[in-house]
Amino acid sequence: MKEHAITMLGTGLIGEFYTATLHGRRGRDRVRVVYSRTDERGRAFAARWGIPEHTTDLEAAIRHPATDTVIVGLPNHLHEEAVRLAAQAGKAVLCTKPLGRNAGEARRMLEAVEKAGVFAGYLEDLCYTPKTLKALGMVQAGAIGDVTWVRSRETHPGPHSAWFWDGRLTGGGAIVDLGCHCVEIIRNFVGKGNRPLEVLCHTDTLVHPIDDEDNAIALIRFESGAVGQFEVSWTFRGGMDLRDEVAGTEGTIWLNHFLRTGFEVFTTGGSGGYVAEKAETERGWLFPVGDEVSELGYVDMFADMFEAMDAGRAPRETFYDGYVVNAIMDAAYRSAKSGRWEPVELEWRGGTTPRITRRQETYEGMVVIKRETLPDGRQKLILKDPASGSFVDRVVAG
Amino acid sequence: MKEHAITMLGTGLIGEFYTATLHGRRGRDRVRVVYSRTDERGRAFAARWGIPEHTTDLEAAIRHPATDTVIVGLPNHLHEEAVRLAAQAGKAVLCTKPLGRNAGEARRMLEAVEKAGVFAGYLEDLCYTPKTLKALGMVQAGAIGDVTWVRSRETHPGPHSAWFWDGRLTGGGAIVDLGCHCVEIIRNFVGKGNRPLEVLCHTDTLVHPIDDEDNAIALIRFESGAVGQFEVSWTFRGGMDLRDEVAGTEGTIWLNHFLRTGFEVFTTGGSGGYVAEKAETERGWLFPVGDEVSELGYVDMFADMFEAMDAGRAPRETFYDGYVVNAIMDAAYRSAKSGRWEPVELEWRGGTTPRITRRQETYEGMVVIKRETLPDGRQKLILKDPASGSFVDRVVAG
Amino acid sequence: MKEHAITMLGTGLIGEFYTATLHGRRGRDRVRVVYSRTDERGRAFAARWGIPEHTTDLEAAIRHPATDTVIVGLPNHLHEEAVRLAAQAGKAVLCTKPLGRNAGEARRMLEAVEKAGVFAGYLEDLCYTPKTLKALGMVQAGAIGDVTWVRSRETHPGPHSAWFWDGRLTGGGAIVDLGCHCVEIIRNFVGKGNRPLEVLCHTDTLVHPIDDEDNAIALIRFESGAVGQFEVSWTFRGGMDLRDEVAGTEGTIWLNHFLRTGFEVFTTGGSGGYVAEKAETERGWLFPVGDEVSELGYVDMFADMFEAMDAGRAPRETFYDGYVVNAIMDAAYRSAKSGRWEPVELEWRGGTTPRITRRQETYEGMVVIKRETLPDGRQKLILKDPASGSFVDRVVAG
Amino acid sequence: MKEHAITMLGTGLIGEFYTATLHGRRGRDRVRVVYSRTDERGRAFAARWGIPEHTTDLEAAIRHPATDTVIVGLPNHLHEEAVRLAAQAGKAVLCTKPLGRNAGEARRMLEAVEKAGVFAGYLEDLCYTPKTLKALGMVQAGAIGDVTWVRSRETHPGPHSAWFWDGRLTGGGAIVDLGCHCVEIIRNFVGKGNRPLEVLCHTDTLVHPIDDEDNAIALIRFESGAVGQFEVSWTFRGGMDLRDEVAGTEGTIWLNHFLRTGFEVFTTGGSGGYVAEKAETERGWLFPVGDEVSELGYVDMFADMFEAMDAGRAPRETFYDGYVVNAIMDAAYRSAKSGRWEPVELEWRGGTTPRITRRQETYEGMVVIKRETLPDGRQKLILKDPASGSFVDRVVAG
Repeated sequence: MKEHAITMLGTGLIGEFYTATLHGRRGRDRVRVVYSRTDERGRAFAARWGIPEHTTDLEAAIRHPATDTVIVGLPNHLHEEAVRLAAQAGKAVLCTKPLGRNAGEARRMLEAVEKAGVFAGYLEDLCYTPKTLKALGMVQAGAIGDVTWVRSRETHPGPHSAWFWDGRLTGGGAIVDLGCHCVEIIRNFVGKGNRPLEVLCHTDTLVHPIDDEDNAIALIRFESGAVGQFEVSWTFRGGMDLRDEVAGTEGTIWLNHFLRTGFEVFTTGGSGGYVAEKAETERGWLFPVGDEVSELGYVDMFADMFEAMDAGRAPRETFYDGYVVNAIMDAAYRSAKSGRWEPVELEWRGGTTPRITRRQETYEGMVVIKRETLPDGRQKLILKDPASGSFVDRVVAG
Repeated sequence: MKEHAITMLGTGLIGEFYTATLHGRRGRDRVRVVYSRTDERGRAFAARWGIPEHTTDLEAAIRHPATDTVIVGLPNHLHEEAVRLAAQAGKAVLCTKPLGRNAGEARRMLEAVEKAGVFAGYLEDLCYTPKTLKALGMVQAGAIGDVTWVRSRETHPGPHSAWFWDGRLTGGGAIVDLGCHCVEIIRNFVGKGNRPLEVLCHTDTLVHPIDDEDNAIALIRFESGAVGQFEVSWTFRGGMDLRDEVAGTEGTIWLNHFLRTGFEVFTTGGSGGYVAEKAETERGWLFPVGDEVSELGYVDMFADMFEAMDAGRAPRETFYDGYVVNAIMDAAYRSAKSGRWEPVELEWRGGTTPRITRRQETYEGMVVIKRETLPDGRQKLILKDPASGSFVDRVVAG
Repeated sequence: MKEHAITMLGTGLIGEFYTATLHGRRGRDRVRVVYSRTDERGRAFAARWGIPEHTTDLEAAIRHPATDTVIVGLPNHLHEEAVRLAAQAGKAVLCTKPLGRNAGEARRMLEAVEKAGVFAGYLEDLCYTPKTLKALGMVQAGAIGDVTWVRSRETHPGPHSAWFWDGRLTGGGAIVDLGCHCVEIIRNFVGKGNRPLEVLCHTDTLVHPIDDEDNAIALIRFESGAVGQFEVSWTFRGGMDLRDEVAGTEGTIWLNHFLRTGFEVFTTGGSGGYVAEKAETERGWLFPVGDEVSELGYVDMFADMFEAMDAGRAPRETFYDGYVVNAIMDAAYRSAKSGRWEPVELEWRGGTTPRITRRQETYEGMVVIKRETLPDGRQKLILKDPASGSFVDRVVAG
Repeated sequence: MKEHAITMLGTGLIGEFYTATLHGRRGRDRVRVVYSRTDERGRAFAARWGIPEHTTDLEAAIRHPATDTVIVGLPNHLHEEAVRLAAQAGKAVLCTKPLGRNAGEARRMLEAVEKAGVFAGYLEDLCYTPKTLKALGMVQAGAIGDVTWVRSRETHPGPHSAWFWDGRLTGGGAIVDLGCHCVEIIRNFVGKGNRPLEVLCHTDTLVHPIDDEDNAIALIRFESGAVGQFEVSWTFRGGMDLRDEVAGTEGTIWLNHFLRTGFEVFTTGGSGGYVAEKAETERGWLFPVGDEVSELGYVDMFADMFEAMDAGRAPRETFYDGYVVNAIMDAAYRSAKSGRWEPVELEWRGGTTPRITRRQETYEGMVVIKRETLPDGRQKLILKDPASGSFVDRVVAG
């Protein structure tokens, strides 16, 4: 198994999470060079994580001869240049979410890596949470039949860093920040070959004194008839609400990634000046997660990326996926303005997906609408007379 | 306290629930006459509940001299006539949900009772569940600040009776059956004086061989900026999913009325041929509710109705509320067809509601976007320079 | 249906709950006279609940000619006298929990009502919660096979009234206050005819500066082999923890009555000076219950009492049950002192219960220990050779 | 960071879990040699996990010159010999739980590694679950004050392999199999320096036709006054129930490791012949965990072991801990026979722990029993007069 030497671009929260994951738990891949816009932050980060070199020169960091992989953990408006430089350097490049500020940027990044023929991975961690991976396996094994609806929700009280609030740098508000996760979670559950056709979206700025949306809800209609629904908010109170719900013709899946995971704590504040981390409150009932980098998918994400790299296969999440996500978000922004369904405009590489199959059963010439088993074992049928259009009940042997 | 003698119209599931509630737990109000379309069902129902008289004559049941109150538990297309007759008879009339098949019908029923001057109550049980009543009290006390968003979800595998599936009799599909509950729950949380302006809705018929929708999602935009979101489905698997979520500027409320209420059972099927009631499965993990008529709001609903009647005040849920619900559902159906926001057309009797207040704080000439308390007690401010539009972090004393 | 006129003894929290239940929701039974030790409290209580008369004369209250039923809601040391007087007055008497401070007192109260031939009910509300009643029905229908173990837990940060803390008045500490509930819940689940044989108990006084126990854990061994386990505490932090778990040979039941019932609220304290009721905290995540008197069983308890009275049958919870509970608690206190199993000393009126049936299956002369179904449909047997005592695996057709 | 080459002893379920953990997620430590009692199983295991060599010669496997670490994943009765051989070979040795069949065996194993001076780790995975590690950090930071009570529960329907059922090979029944986990979880929460003084235990064989216990409940009394409580069962229905509850003077912690972790699935069995893994049922509501080896602690356990080895420090879980666990289980078995508290007999290497501090506050010469904040901000005090022993309420300014 190869050991990869990494150039890490960015020393913010995401750089911390990425490096904590890579350097944690006896992994074999290590950050060799870190780039930060300020020397002070780069130095502190390198010291904290035992990284041999740090620099404020982006190009030098990317071209550093000792590294084979570049991880882009920079603000959104800097992704394109970083990816372009990494592609030129002929290195593998892993880029954080969202890929671009819009589909145009994402498309150029996709073209850059494809033209250069370098390995490229889209760091969409929430599609790699252990729960999500297992749930996807169950869906693919047929456990819930055809997927009809996916709700993905990500809400919290608003970002921690200033640049997230500046739509010029990010490409938008809560949709670009949080919705990108939801969109790709939804695509995974409905099937990546299931073409997103159109989007209906409502946005508003209800609480924060900003111009971009702090709340949004959108519906994505897929070719099969399945609907994806995302809810994002920067005004949620109570922590970070990260939930997915999947409905299928034969089952249901509910995932809760953060606030209700079987870990519940009540504290009066404690005897020793205890201060809770990361919750909105320091006292009362708190709901921590066990191992955040694992629960949020970082561990499995990097394992997939490097294994794919070594095996010469594509990772689960590619730059093409990142581009599709941007295209869907673009349609959402258009819909929020127009107040109607807007088509998703993208170069589609998937195939076609048939419509979800409707029940087709008849009983003595009538259409069977529903079967219910009664306590005595008999069955109650609800039947429709195709001629008159009338409905009747009928109880038959079980 | 007065004791009311009731004419019950209808002997289906809803008539059962209503009578079980009224005759249960030593209540003082009793069904005196029951009407059923078939003599056999009426006779059995009367015997089961100790009701002195049953009849197949609707008008005679309503005009029966011994009763003062008429409860309409009939299929939707029969509501208008029953209400008209009860109003003519000068009796109090309580009508099950939805009030009409559409706003036009509901409007005529509202006019009939107002013209006759009789007491009229809208039997919207889910606005009376004990959890909902307490949650509404908390919201009205300011516990979660301004309400920004309400999600109300009601889904199950489809109705038990044939007539529910016939849109000609009901007025539609899952929206008319289930969405009427959600709409009124949403109105209660955002405030009944908060005018519903427009609706965005998506419907589809994914599973059942019917013409009306078996799945729908809608957004309702209110005057304050709050958004109501309802999700209804006749294709959900796993039981009956009945949940509400309310987001406010200062808090959050999550209600689960049915599948996760602190009652969890695993059964192999048992040693004695045990058969579970009402769940989709008879074995494995089951999630019963304690006391269904109480948890679904029937007990508190009838208490409010008769107390209001005795006190000469309006009940919490009036025919006007039923009419507003129909008007919102009409807009939803129009939107599902047009694919865009459709205005809610109704005679508005509420006042006006101001826009949700956005944060308005400045710090040294900068706009305060967010305050976070750091572990050391200091505060991190995210600030926006109104001149340049740029954002910066600033850490200040706590 | 008869309407009962009640003498209420006591105006503390329990008197409030009882009267709220009786006068709530259009019930037909009403408090006619209330007794309080102080005139001021009696007057206020009567005014609050619309009760015609109040008095500080216990005997007069009990003998009042207008009432037919006496409800004892007094501190424990006053139960015996009140019951004795009610029996002498020939009235129905309902006594709050625990029946006595010990089995001797309870026994004399039992004898008093039996000798007088009056109706007597033991007001053990937690055996009447809607969840408990439905769970008991499932157990009795065989849903979980033979009950092997019941855990009943009741803990909170300590009582609200001073007299609860005085063991001379109550008979003990957390066991007498809370354990009485647990013991009777356990008896209901293992079957009331299942004789409690012996008790093993540990108590300690860990936090509060009192002499009686503020924490206790006990095991009760029943004739069938089933074990009841109760955990009580006056030092729990986080609210009131009220949970029951039942294990059976064919299933499992988990009940949560208070802190996790599908009602979850986060509040920053709110915009309007909102103050939460009853929780340990006023901010952060709170877990209210919908309708406390219903969830705690008061509604169903009084319905059963008066219906039993009218029907001339015994209620679900009798004075004999209260006496058994006291006898078990007496054994617990003895065990806590001796550090070993102590027999339950009581006059047993139930019959005998057979031992839980052990699996008795053989396969080719071997004892079948366990069967597991493999993914391919075959069965894996774990077998014991009765001769050698050795164990082997064997995979066979399904 | 060093890369370790491992001899794996045993190819059963635990060997699978261990190797899956070590070889998963780009770890640097690898199994080099695997020992199995049968050539066929060894060959298959080696092929499955890419292990260069397999053997049926225990001593050769342990002495293999290419490995530096021996992992003992054998049935309990083979631990002692394997550990002795590994110590003789001068290799680091990691032994699965329980360390011995009893304290005598464990003691000899402890002496063997101490005499040889080799690194030795006790593979108690459940003390390393991410939730447990974070919860322990919170407890140590004072979040819940002094720990007063720990409940650790591990129950399932019985082991999968035949040898687990043979008490001659294991040392007992459900206590030795499951209780060893619970005991060490409890020790971690009350503090490893907190001496276990005595044990009270009840066992029974209720369902399976075996001689050893299939159910047990025990209390462990620690020097501080804290009580540990474990519940183990081989007759639980519904999956694997793995929960811990910790009570402290200032807070509460509830951990659910398996059945309720925010992952809920309903399946009718699915459209594609889906078969659920590991649950008791294949249909209905299922509760998978995301990543089993992570949730059960294996990942963090091996990281700690190898990091400790590299750093020359002791791991979190040592052979001494394993020995203490055996000593406590021995006392439990003695208590189950004697029916009374039995002392824990062991060589104690920890120090002494003071008694949990009781509240010591006075108000105007009275002992303060409890303080409650009233809605109006005032405080209600419950006070005890030290002279008379009587209790009174007093409301004072907040």
